[in-house]
Amino acid sequence: MISVYEQTQAALRAIKAREPEVRAWTHLNEESVLEEARAIDHRAAGEELYGVIVAAKDIFETADMPTTYGSPIYKDYRPVRDAAVIARLREKGALILGKTFSTEFASAFPGPTRNPHNLDHTPGGSSSGSAAAVASGMVRVALGTQTLGSIIRPASYCGIVGFKPTYGRVSRSGVLNLSETLDTVGFFGAILEDVERVFYSLTNEIAPARIPNEKQPRLAFCKGPGWDDANAGVQDRIGRYVDSLREEGVFIEDLDLRSTLSEILRAAQIVHDAEAYRNFTWERTQHFDRLSAEFQNVLSRGEAVTEEAYERALIVGKVGRAQMQKVFEKFHALITLSATQEAPAGLASTGSPNMNAAWTFLRGPCVSLPKLKAANGLPVGVQLIGKPFEDGQLLSCAHWLDARCPNI
Amino acid sequence: MISVYEQTQAALRAIKAREPEVRAWTHLNEESVLEEARAIDHRAAGEELYGVIVAAKDIFETADMPTTYGSPIYKDYRPVRDAAVIARLREKGALILGKTFSTEFASAFPGPTRNPHNLDHTPGGSSSGSAAAVASGMVRVALGTQTLGSIIRPASYCGIVGFKPTYGRVSRSGVLNLSETLDTVGFFGAILEDVERVFYSLTNEIAPARIPNEKQPRLAFCKGPGWDDANAGVQDRIGRYVDSLREEGVFIEDLDLRSTLSEILRAAQIVHDAEAYRNFTWERTQHFDRLSAEFQNVLSRGEAVTEEAYERALIVGKVGRAQMQKVFEKFHALITLSATQEAPAGLASTGSPNMNAAWTFLRGPCVSLPKLKAANGLPVGVQLIGKPFEDGQLLSCAHWLDARCPNI
Repeated sequence: MISVYEQTQAALRAIKAREPEVRAWTHLNEESVLEEARAIDHRAAGEELYGVIVAAKDIFETADMPTTYGSPIYKDYRPVRDAAVIARLREKGALILGKTFSTEFASAFPGPTRNPHNLDHTPGGSSSGSAAAVASGMVRVALGTQTLGSIIRPASYCGIVGFKPTYGRVSRSGVLNLSETLDTVGFFGAILEDVERVFYSLTNEIAPARIPNEKQPRLAFCKGPGWDDANAGVQDRIGRYVDSLREEGVFIEDLDLRSTLSEILRAAQIVHDAEAYRNFTWERTQHFDRLSAEFQNVLSRGEAVTEEAYERALIVGKVGRAQMQKVFEKFHALITLSATQEAPAGLASTGSPNMNAAWTFLRGPCVSLPKLKAANGLPVGVQLIGKPFEDGQLLSCAHWLDARCPNI
Repeated sequence: MISVYEQTQAALRAIKAREPEVRAWTHLNEESVLEEARAIDHRAAGEELYGVIVAAKDIFETADMPTTYGSPIYKDYRPVRDAAVIARLREKGALILGKTFSTEFASAFPGPTRNPHNLDHTPGGSSSGSAAAVASGMVRVALGTQTLGSIIRPASYCGIVGFKPTYGRVSRSGVLNLSETLDTVGFFGAILEDVERVFYSLTNEIAPARIPNEKQPRLAFCKGPGWDDANAGVQDRIGRYVDSLREEGVFIEDLDLRSTLSEILRAAQIVHDAEAYRNFTWERTQHFDRLSAEFQNVLSRGEAVTEEAYERALIVGKVGRAQMQKVFEKFHALITLSATQEAPAGLASTGSPNMNAAWTFLRGPCVSLPKLKAANGLPVGVQLIGKPFEDGQLLSCAHWLDARCPNI
């Protein structure tokens, strides 16, 4: 068995090779991580996440590393403690290798990270560095958060697995508070098993038995919020993916939720803006000129949201969740695109969250599997959406599908 | 008009007189607050909360004062920023006078604070210092939080006004995360107008017109969760309060929610314990022996909660909220006790949250008015409970009742 020390050395070598062009990391302390790796090697290998090497988005507090939130305001910030999920990973035997670039306050303004598949393209955001670190083979597992589309979209752009669990499943203690109604902690993995291992270990949820090949989960091909914002190329690709499953004999219904959920994307944005405005009062009043113009705009929009409009937006979410309960009586998982297109060219924007924000607001688990390729060869994810709290069931469906269908 | 400087001096004199026996404050920097007061005096008096002097529970981050969370683990902790609500108060012209004692992590283990009405009795908790600072006339307004019963109970024990707004109404950014499903930021005031002023200013909600004397809100005298834990003395007192209102011609229906909401107290406790266990992973793994035995017990209970039991508890809350929607179609406000008894003797416990935890979980606004006196002369509050997001309506009902009925 390869020691944790050797694995860490290998990770550091991979970083040395690709980091100058990918720029995934805000902080990496070679010496102390090698020391920590050696300490783990000296322990008995009994822990559930023994020696798992993890990258953490730089909006999780770490007692031994800076935490910048992607903002110059916090460039020297050294938390006194670890975020609960960081402490939990360490308790289970994992090694936190370093911190990865987030967009400014997990919102729109990008960091310097590039897409490992094509350096002229965005890796997506806001969990840009975490996605890029996994996609370039530096680590197998990374922590991220999703408020609108910050896990599933970069997973899609970077051609890796992304998992946004049910809202509230993983502690947000010690994590940046952008929007309390939406912020959700989740994971990136090289393969599905990587995110599963970490998720089940952190939550103590018991993984359900795998669905046998011959027993088929109830699936729908869903055109929902954001579908009409997707470009024709990726719409065509997922259509072919579903067709090829159907040709294999998998029964997949068609489901159109565009009119049922027509208000939800707008409502999610209103909640996001209003809560961001409330939450960043100190930064706004003390350091306004150190905020990007983009984030200043988020705050202006948030300030303009009336209490009435905010409440109405929350009710849209609540009604949507009730409607989805009926949908999930019929289906175990919905299949749709993970993003409206492949990673856009340029680093000025991290792309559109329109295939994700509704599902974040509706709270159920979402997985992105790297199944599709756009015309230019860049990866695109297939998104699976499950019923809130049925994370295990969704992950089982993801396995069942993962094993079954070729990449398109 | 008295200057803010003079008001601050007066507050400091009040503190000098009573603090040695009350022990409300963890931090107070006379020099810097007087300087700040002078700076406010030099500004134009245009701000909504111009010169309002506020005490803050020591679980809100402050850039210029320590933040200890009531725990020795954080005794030297100096945050780099203000919690959003602190920054918002300052933006509106308020002066943060200092920090007040919280129980350990806003949970059960008490600080040294005593009840200003009788020093041998608890002030309640977890917002112990905030309630005692207002009750002893040191400040008119204080910030608190309620997770189970941490605002309404100490307000009741200390004979002041307490207000827990609707869940999610006030930003929790920079506030200790004990239980994300329950933690709610709220206020103490010497009189109802004090908390109203701060609440409306912070949220930009527009205060509804006062209810005219002759137009009566729809009210119910509610025996709900925790009622049977209340002692006969205070049950009798609130019965007499309601009788006296009825004698004045106020129509008040009787409403018994004990069987409808029979599971909710237990469910709130399960959610509290499970989330506390998740959230305090760093403190548990790094500083276990610096946690009180009480808090260690909370964590043990939380660890024992299965994911299934946690989800079931969340569903009890959701079902309860749906049931309460029907109740609030009929009533503008429910009237019940704020606490199961007057402040208990001794400082070892801060008392029972059983008249509060259900309402916290059900998310609607709650007000405590200091209307009753127990046989031993200690104050007891009348609690009014409103529909989620109808904070303004509840505060109007509170005014209508406040003006109408003598103290009992």
